[in-house]
This record gives sequence, structure tokens and C-alpha cells, in this order.
Amino acid sequence: MTSRTPRIACIGAGNIGRSWAVAFARGGAAVRLFDTVPAALERARSAIEATATDLEQMGRLPDKQALLDRIQVSTSLSEAIEGACHIQESVIDDLEVKRRVFRDLDAAAPDTVTIGSSSGELPVSKFTDELPGRGRCLLVHPVNPPHILRAVEICPTPWTDPWAVESSTRLVESLGMVPLKVSREINGYVINRLQYALIGEALHLVGAGYCEPADIDAALKHGLGLRWAFLGPFETSHLNASQGYLQYMLTDEEGARRLMTDVGARYPWNHALIEKIHRYLEASLPVSAMPAHQRERDRTLMSLMQRLQERKGES
Amino acid sequence: MTSRTPRIACIGAGNIGRSWAVAFARGGAAVRLFDTVPAALERARSAIEATATDLEQMGRLPDKQALLDRIQVSTSLSEAIEGACHIQESVIDDLEVKRRVFRDLDAAAPDTVTIGSSSGELPVSKFTDELPGRGRCLLVHPVNPPHILRAVEICPTPWTDPWAVESSTRLVESLGMVPLKVSREINGYVINRLQYALIGEALHLVGAGYCEPADIDAALKHGLGLRWAFLGPFETSHLNASQGYLQYMLTDEEGARRLMTDVGARYPWNHALIEKIHRYLEASLPVSAMPAHQRERDRTLMSLMQRLQERKGES
Repeated sequence: MTSRTPRIACIGAGNIGRSWAVAFARGGAAVRLFDTVPAALERARSAIEATATDLEQMGRLPDKQALLDRIQVSTSLSEAIEGACHIQESVIDDLEVKRRVFRDLDAAAPDTVTIGSSSGELPVSKFTDELPGRGRCLLVHPVNPPHILRAVEICPTPWTDPWAVESSTRLVESLGMVPLKVSREINGYVINRLQYALIGEALHLVGAGYCEPADIDAALKHGLGLRWAFLGPFETSHLNASQGYLQYMLTDEEGARRLMTDVGARYPWNHALIEKIHRYLEASLPVSAMPAHQRERDRTLMSLMQRLQERKGES
Repeated sequence: MTSRTPRIACIGAGNIGRSWAVAFARGGAAVRLFDTVPAALERARSAIEATATDLEQMGRLPDKQALLDRIQVSTSLSEAIEGACHIQESVIDDLEVKRRVFRDLDAAAPDTVTIGSSSGELPVSKFTDELPGRGRCLLVHPVNPPHILRAVEICPTPWTDPWAVESSTRLVESLGMVPLKVSREINGYVINRLQYALIGEALHLVGAGYCEPADIDAALKHGLGLRWAFLGPFETSHLNASQGYLQYMLTDEEGARRLMTDVGARYPWNHALIEKIHRYLEASLPVSAMPAHQRERDRTLMSLMQRLQERKGES
């Protein structure tokens, strides 16, 4: 991290674009938010004010005015990107629009500026392939809303230069967010693949009449989702067996494989993969202290449920 | 609900069995916890005491001693089930063991007693088919740990009588838990199918080298999981589009279908299903008040993250 305040241009002032602007500004960056439509910028400005008020009221922001001062809006692209070290594109998911916007950005921004796309659906390679500066273009994809949730997946196209990946990763980290490094492009990348695997099975269960929509939502918010709020799926499995992940996956390996195949997950995992994941888990959650980990999980679950109950009482 | 205290027999004193005992006792039931192994009952007794202490310390239990007084342990099956209105089986997931235990339970318990199995893996029909009283046997499956998490899926076998489903559902509800009614058996039922769809894709992403295990866990605990802690997947999608679920699913229908197919979810959903889910969402989260719903979502997310941060500071 340099001591200079990083300057970031946010392109597109829709929901994601303006949430990005707040996320970057919360992390200390100076942000210019660009849109071709003046009315969109006006809407964004008042939405950002409301967001900043909420952040302050919830104790998540020390100085609302300082944050608002770090966000400027602009209808001039050249003004928006002037002096920026990173450009974050969040226009609509339409191939022709993305193509045009990236052509303009690549033409206007100096070579050293990274250009991240918020595209969760279209692979970035699809609309950057013909650009002279395609080596600094890459995926920088958040979870909605990025001004609160911290996970950001970062993925190179086949032609993205390593420095662009490193630079974007460090930037995201320096702003207090959590970069997930995806090694190469795949439809939906990591976050939406995980999400859509579950959504797809949810549609199957309701569509084929096994349960009602409310049961799906209840299964998450009164069950699986509360664990996943602070433990990932590997960590969750690890804590569900006294001997950890290896035991969880291999005690009834045949049953686990059958169930995954039934829900459409056909990747032929082997024991080396399970052992690799177990080693990763062992580093932060050693099996030797499993009862303590489980107790901490339970206490955190209780704490979250209590907070949710309090909020229900408030509203 | 009757004014009488329901009596429940918990069979098997492992992790799930003893957590069930606490769950039922928290809900006001009188519990007898049975195991053939005296040492297992001793371990369960001290684990239950520790659990009750944590519940009380976390403000989730008004009277620890009253709860402990409602749980008795026993090595006599006939003593354990005497006077019970419901028997909850939580022995190991082994077909022969389940078969034997259900044979004993069915022989010993009066016809009016429902027998629920905690089996998340083996379908209940596989080990109840030959029982004279198979009509009162069914799945009653929690999320671990059931003394904290409230979702419980309830599913009949092909021969379960409707009264047994109704009675178990009312019992679970009366104890403050959230029943999910599954209409008919399917491998993994609802909770584990949703979980394993995501787990299976996670193994694919790590196994094929797209990311590291830590990235998967981060995608949930710094992203998807925080939303799912209080909004199910349908509710989450609904709030991600200003016009709600219909817009979320159908704006780029082709892309959504392609992504689901890519992650293995091959159910051929149609517009009628999406409209049904939208109607269900509209009842509690009307599109006309979408900005208010999104703001409430954001405030709850901030509140949960603040609580998690506080806990990290404590530990």
C-alpha cells in the first residue's frame, strides 16, 4: 500500500455501481462515479446518502460526511477516469454494451490502469478480446451489496497480464475486502456457480413437488445459512464430525458420491482432494481441539440468532 | 397443543441424539434419552450440562436447571419409551442397525406413538418396510445442532399414515422449531440435497484447480452465507432485482438456464414455476416496497457482521 489515496472510477451508476462506489470510499479511496444518464447519477447520489446514513447509524462508518466527500459524480468519462489507478465497470449485462464500454475505457485510460468488470454472467474474455489493452482487463466481481459484503472474486482472461491480477487483488485487500482468486474463466465463476448449484436444486425440489418454496427458504434461514454465515461449506462439514473433514467425507463415501451424483454434481473427486481440503482445515481448526471448535460454532450460532430475534423485535 | 407436557424418547446418545434431547427439553417436553452403552449416556449427560450452561450464558435459556430436570437418561428401552408420544431415533447411519432398532421400537411402543428417524442419508422406507407398525414411522431430520438450529424436515414413507405426519409436524411446531414438509422420499431429502448440490460444485471448483479451498469458504462466509442466514435463496434472488423474482430469473433466462445446466442442475423449470415462486415472495416481500426490503436486508447484514466482529474480538 502506498500512502497516497487511491483514485477509482466506477462506470455505471446502477445498484451495483453505486454500491461499489460506497465500498471503495469506505476503504479510503477517492471515487468518481460515471454514468451517461444524468438522472441515474442523481438517483445514485441520493441512494448513496441513504446508504451512508444507514452505515453510520449501524455503527459501521465513523464519519459519514468524510465518505460522501470522497465520492464525486460525473457525466464525463475522461473526467471520471483522470488519475484513477483502477476502473470498475458495472453497466448492464449485455454483450454489445459491455463491448462498447470497454472499447471506450481502453482507449481513454493509460496502460497502467486496471479495468475490472462486475460481470457475473458474461465471461470478460467475450468483450475484451480485440482490445489493444486487453492485458489489463479482468473480472472483479462482488456479492451484492458490495458496500457491505466483503467477498470479491478476481479472475484473469486468457490474456490478462499477471500484474493486473496482482494489482487488483492488492487494491481490493487494501480496501478491507476479501479477494477470491479464480485461476481461469469458467461460466459463472465461483460465486454464482455455488449459488446456482443450490438454486437449481431448489427449483427441482419445488418444481417436482417435493416441497413448497417457503420450505426451501426455511431450510436456509433456519438451518444451513446460519452456519454458512461464518463457516464455509468445508469448515461446516469439518465441524460436523469429531475426526473432521476426512471422517465426514469418507465414513460413508459411497452415500456421499451417490447423493452428489443425484443432485447433478458429477466431478470425480478422489481421496487426494479430500486430504488436501482436510489439511487446509486442520491449519485453522485442528481436530485435536474439535470440541472447542464445535462449542465456539454453537455459541456463534446462538449469538447470531439472538441478534436476528432482536432485529425482528425492533422492526 | 395440549396442556399436558409431552414426553419424548430419544434413542441413541451420540451428538445428534443428545442435541435432540436438549431441543425437545428447551421446547418444554419431558425427555428420556436412551442408549445401550452406559458410557455413552455418561458422556451425553456431561455434554448436555455444558450445552445448557452455554445456552444460559448466551441468554438463550431462562432456567438451566429446569431444562436439565426435564432430561433423564436410561439404559432400559421400555423405561425410555414409557408414556412417550413420540420416539426420535438417532443411531448410526447403518442399514442393519436401523432395521434392528426400528424392529425393537415398533414392537415395544403403542400404536399411537410416532417414530421419527434422524436419518439424513438412508431413506426411512429402507428399514421400516416390514414392520407391522410402519404406518407411524417417518423421517424427522434436523440440521446439526438441533438444540440451536430450528429447521426440521418431515417426510412420510410410502406407507406412513397422514396422522403420523400431522402429529409430528404439530409436535415440532409446538416445541418452537420450524417443520419443513417434504411430500415424498427422495435421496438426501431437501436439506442435504441443497447442501450437497453446493458441496459437489465446491469440490469441482477446487478439484479442477479453479480456486483453493479457502476461497470456497470465503465465498460463503464473506458473501452468500450472510444473506442466507436470514433470507432463503428465493428471497435473496427476489431482493436482487428491483422488480423481484420474475425479473431476476427471466431478464436473462437463457444465461440462467445455461449456468444451471453447467453446474449439473438439469430440472426443466418453466415460467409457471417461476410465477408460483414470485407469488409466494410477493405475499411477504411485495415488489411495491422493494427499496424498504432491500434497506432492511442491508441493515440486517450490517448487524450480523457487527455481531460476528464483536465475537471475534471476544475470543
